[in-house]
Amino acid sequence: MRNVLTTGILFTDHYQLTMAQLYFRAGLGDRPARFEHTFRAYPDYGTHQAGYAIAAGLGPFVDWMETARFDDEAADALRSLRSGDGGALFEDDFLDWMQQIGGFGDVSLSAVPEGRVVHRNTPIAVVEAPLVMAQLLESSLLNHLNYAALIATKASRVVEAAHGGSVLEFGLRRAHGFGGNGASRSALIGGAEFSSNVGLSHELGIPSKGTHGHSMVQVFMAIAGGELEAFRAYADAYPDDCLLLVDTINTLESGVPNAIRVFEELKGRGHRPVGIRLDSGDLAHLAVRSAALLDAAGFAGTSIVLSSQLDELTIWQIRNQVAEEAPRYGLDVDQMLSRLVYGVGSRMVTSDGDPSFDGVYKAVAVRDAAGAWQPAIKISDSPDKLALPGVKSLWRVYDERGIATADVITLEGEDMERRPLEVLHPTRPGVGRSLDVSQVSAVEPLLEPVVENGRRVADFGGIVEARSRRIADLDRLDAGVRRLVNPHTYHVSVTRPLLELKQSLIEAHRAG
Amino acid sequence: MRNVLTTGILFTDHYQLTMAQLYFRAGLGDRPARFEHTFRAYPDYGTHQAGYAIAAGLGPFVDWMETARFDDEAADALRSLRSGDGGALFEDDFLDWMQQIGGFGDVSLSAVPEGRVVHRNTPIAVVEAPLVMAQLLESSLLNHLNYAALIATKASRVVEAAHGGSVLEFGLRRAHGFGGNGASRSALIGGAEFSSNVGLSHELGIPSKGTHGHSMVQVFMAIAGGELEAFRAYADAYPDDCLLLVDTINTLESGVPNAIRVFEELKGRGHRPVGIRLDSGDLAHLAVRSAALLDAAGFAGTSIVLSSQLDELTIWQIRNQVAEEAPRYGLDVDQMLSRLVYGVGSRMVTSDGDPSFDGVYKAVAVRDAAGAWQPAIKISDSPDKLALPGVKSLWRVYDERGIATADVITLEGEDMERRPLEVLHPTRPGVGRSLDVSQVSAVEPLLEPVVENGRRVADFGGIVEARSRRIADLDRLDAGVRRLVNPHTYHVSVTRPLLELKQSLIEAHRAG
Repeated sequence: MRNVLTTGILFTDHYQLTMAQLYFRAGLGDRPARFEHTFRAYPDYGTHQAGYAIAAGLGPFVDWMETARFDDEAADALRSLRSGDGGALFEDDFLDWMQQIGGFGDVSLSAVPEGRVVHRNTPIAVVEAPLVMAQLLESSLLNHLNYAALIATKASRVVEAAHGGSVLEFGLRRAHGFGGNGASRSALIGGAEFSSNVGLSHELGIPSKGTHGHSMVQVFMAIAGGELEAFRAYADAYPDDCLLLVDTINTLESGVPNAIRVFEELKGRGHRPVGIRLDSGDLAHLAVRSAALLDAAGFAGTSIVLSSQLDELTIWQIRNQVAEEAPRYGLDVDQMLSRLVYGVGSRMVTSDGDPSFDGVYKAVAVRDAAGAWQPAIKISDSPDKLALPGVKSLWRVYDERGIATADVITLEGEDMERRPLEVLHPTRPGVGRSLDVSQVSAVEPLLEPVVENGRRVADFGGIVEARSRRIADLDRLDAGVRRLVNPHTYHVSVTRPLLELKQSLIEAHRAG
Repeated sequence: MRNVLTTGILFTDHYQLTMAQLYFRAGLGDRPARFEHTFRAYPDYGTHQAGYAIAAGLGPFVDWMETARFDDEAADALRSLRSGDGGALFEDDFLDWMQQIGGFGDVSLSAVPEGRVVHRNTPIAVVEAPLVMAQLLESSLLNHLNYAALIATKASRVVEAAHGGSVLEFGLRRAHGFGGNGASRSALIGGAEFSSNVGLSHELGIPSKGTHGHSMVQVFMAIAGGELEAFRAYADAYPDDCLLLVDTINTLESGVPNAIRVFEELKGRGHRPVGIRLDSGDLAHLAVRSAALLDAAGFAGTSIVLSSQLDELTIWQIRNQVAEEAPRYGLDVDQMLSRLVYGVGSRMVTSDGDPSFDGVYKAVAVRDAAGAWQPAIKISDSPDKLALPGVKSLWRVYDERGIATADVITLEGEDMERRPLEVLHPTRPGVGRSLDVSQVSAVEPLLEPVVENGRRVADFGGIVEARSRRIADLDRLDAGVRRLVNPHTYHVSVTRPLLELKQSLIEAHRAG
């Protein structure tokens, strides 16, 4: 139980609590408020860029929200904090009130389900709750959803680069502490077939995978023979799961020949060897050369697992190089490519190149004393940080081919059946499109109710269902938007009523 | 308790367990083995590079090791995994044996204490344990130590760039799930003065810090007046902690003037305002302009907190720009710089530019049947992945000025008092130095016993002591090695006996 304090309701930023006390003092603590989670930019990895993102993290976030309690321990922790004059920073009446509230029982949340494609500057999760609770959710919501989307997006790109080749997630050792569990989960949502993470995989009902590392070979080299003896011991222990790491000494001169010898022994005993793993050197070249040796020995059906600093770009390059080199060794290119499996670790679980997701959580409306929603806005000195105000809805519009042509943000209650449908650029005045009936095959609401008054109302299934949503959405996403490098810009549009609300608020606050 | 499976002994990679079963089958499970944690390269952020790293993560790792148990739940999880022939992958005799062992009670661990400067290719943590347990530790050890060192190193650089200005860690919302707690802890070890992370700060006994976000101002703009009313409410709630975020509408035209108005009211009531925070726009320019306004109003003593995508390079650039612009507005440069405080989030907790620490854990020796240590080696197809074999010690040699001149790796038992002390380059033949008695002021062993047979034997103190170790080590590190960009290369050397052991092993295994 030692971790409750650091993973419960105080897994938050200090200012959420100072603001909470201020709302309480100002008599605004109970006031219904609406906050939105949105992200301002797709991950940009420097040499390559994402044109879409994959929503993830909702399940673990709701788990957290359901169990986080403002209990005695939380109150006592806050009681110990001092103000600048040496007195208590948080006073007893506020802490008592927080303990009465206790948790997130009055929160309602709608969101785009995990696995779906999502786009920048759209509200992908919307919280409606008493102001204090909506505020107190912020840090954990951003922590859970930002990182998960970052990794699911990266994994989705890695999986696309693998063109049907299996992707295994191996990143625990370079992941960020227990965040490694979120990394594995998000990678699986993004399309990784299996993870090496044992506990998390078991929790999700997906078998963990793995074989052996260099250390096993080293141990045999040191005290029990050598690489061949290590491989034999592995084949004895796992005759039907025999996948051997062949680069501990020298891949082509030692590892592959020893593996083939053991494979022959296995075959003689009626087992089918699985394959080899390469973890260093010129992976593409070594894969081709190893395949030629395996084929010549009658093991054309074995897999070749590649690992070592892989990401979507290295996989793309490896596949190109393999396609170029394979014929020189008499190998069929398609057959050669189809036996490749990719073990992806560090670069996937840290989203190498862009390790943080630019997601924010902004107040968009608060009910006034009369009960009417009043839109909230932040103007700021950086125009790209400007969020859209008001109580809104999010839609995806599909064109006549069934391909997504725009995500459209509207004020709540707008008629999306009207044609032509006018959709406008959110920041460039006068830029927009008018879609007539022949150009729109479907309009789909993207936000779904997840929690109502603290109760989970949605069952989006598990990892398998999230993966299916990803595949369905990618099938309906333009190939240009899915491009790994310099993707085409997907349209995110707004309606005239929303744009007018934004303009009028900016003018009002600038004037005031 | 829902997280025991995913944060306990199965917080590991699948292959640790397949190797464990193989060692058990081969009769090697109990064999004493020695593994080392080392990192192959300092973080390279692209435009800037680290010349040293800061050790961190040991405390939480030992906590994990002390509590992780191979219990019924773990055994049952493994029992559900299938082999390629459909049978059990892990058999009952192995699982029973693992349950008898139960945990890491036979593990001994020595390590460089948290907060100390460490260098590449040196053994910074050494495990000695029965082979199965030494192997099973790997994933969690790497997960805990790699990420923590990565963030402590980044924080150390940020703190150095701030030149005495306070650094606040704000990164929870972009950190990787509950890894955010490790991020905050590591940032504090690396020299951040405070963190916004409430639960973790409380656990560490360091007060969390924070004030308010844009949402608070937006809420007042929407239903309770505007920015001025928001600032007044904040000043009423926190008269002795009044630090106001001034960029929600317009920093110079609205935020700072409103803040000054509220500061004057506070002053009239006998309180001392703390300062302002800037979170968007040209931070350096706005800081100078805001300072001029604050000074003119009689608030020269107030702080200016800067935030928004800060890292060591942006802080360096901001300070340069402030130094250049301050005189134009009649401000004293030193006074201006000394009032700056840096709120650092995403880029610190994700180690932006290089988000994974290149740390590995390698078998270096195993006892043979006769009880003698046999060195283990991995040769590999990538020469830079070649680890040093054998049972070794790690030393730091200080020159006549008391500055660290080299970290030296030796075989255990070598005499480090001999002079001249011959230290050799680990990979370039013939490159080395011979240090005579006048060139060596001290030789310090770096590895300290942490755990002996499962019992914690060291008390390295808390965050405060770790921070002190960092400061002491940086004081004894060459300024060139500490440089933010293109640092001078610190010497990591080996002795002749170790080099000869490595060469003989390579030749033996290549010949074999």
